[in-house]
Amino acid sequence: MEIRLGGVGGQGIALAGTLLGKAAALYDGKEAVFTQTYGPEARGGASRADIIISDSAIAYPFVTRPHVLVVLFQEAYEKFRAQLEPGGLMIIEDELVNPRADETALVRLAATKIAQELGNRLAANIVMLGYLIGATKVVSHRAMQEAIRATVNERHLELDMRALDAGFQLAAEAGGD
Amino acid sequence: MEIRLGGVGGQGIALAGTLLGKAAALYDGKEAVFTQTYGPEARGGASRADIIISDSAIAYPFVTRPHVLVVLFQEAYEKFRAQLEPGGLMIIEDELVNPRADETALVRLAATKIAQELGNRLAANIVMLGYLIGATKVVSHRAMQEAIRATVNERHLELDMRALDAGFQLAAEAGGD
Repeated sequence: MEIRLGGVGGQGIALAGTLLGKAAALYDGKEAVFTQTYGPEARGGASRADIIISDSAIAYPFVTRPHVLVVLFQEAYEKFRAQLEPGGLMIIEDELVNPRADETALVRLAATKIAQELGNRLAANIVMLGYLIGATKVVSHRAMQEAIRATVNERHLELDMRALDAGFQLAAEAGGD
Repeated sequence: MEIRLGGVGGQGIALAGTLLGKAAALYDGKEAVFTQTYGPEARGGASRADIIISDSAIAYPFVTRPHVLVVLFQEAYEKFRAQLEPGGLMIIEDELVNPRADETALVRLAATKIAQELGNRLAANIVMLGYLIGATKVVSHRAMQEAIRATVNERHLELDMRALDAGFQLAAEAGGD
């Protein structure tokens, strides 16, 4: 499964990508490749992380047609929307992305608002991750908890766990996709 | 320029790769791609980061024949040594890697020992980075300082800056390659 996360500097896109890779490979026994591209857009603040997760070795480790596209910023939405695999899952941050009127299918997630209610809007990336794994089952809830525990600063641990659960729960309520 | 960093979990390979990518793209105006592969070897503790740095857009963002190979662990040395581009630069961690007797050219850097003398052996990755950029000039000293400042925990900042300078200085003394 190919996943692309797009946003802007400071939204924790790279961290979210790292967590997906770790959860898949270290705790769920899968293969994963995480790629971060820094280019002129990075200097403008844009941030993008690509993750491929597979049950077997990954021969071509590049995301070309993501099955899942998560965008936390308008520019990332505009740039990547056309690349989504037909029938793929698009999740947008509701406050920060205004989708086109003709967009056929997407999930609008109030990740920033939820994170803010939990205590810090910077945890929006983790709310998104929770929803993503709840909807796709690409990694297990438990593996993601382990990855977060092994990675994030202890100060943020409790908040991130609650943010993960909030996103995961919303996906469950939405019926799992 | 294609760079591969290989080591074992806890040596800060992923951080070193991230710092190279950030220094190149955010502070030196270049393009960069950073890829981390998680596979069965990751569960065994192995860690690998690939970085490509270029003055122009990177079409094929995969490291196949690194121009620079930095290895901080025996297993990484054994696995990657044959992939080094002919005439490329190999840097090994002197305490942790025993090179083959027939190895034609490499730099043995006592990165762990130097880091320990500076206060924490965990800064060996930054000593390595300092040497790498001093020897190759792939990113500027100043860009790497900015990347470190923007990335590492404040608690480690002073140590990391000294570790960077120590590696950089050794490369300058060695004649810059």
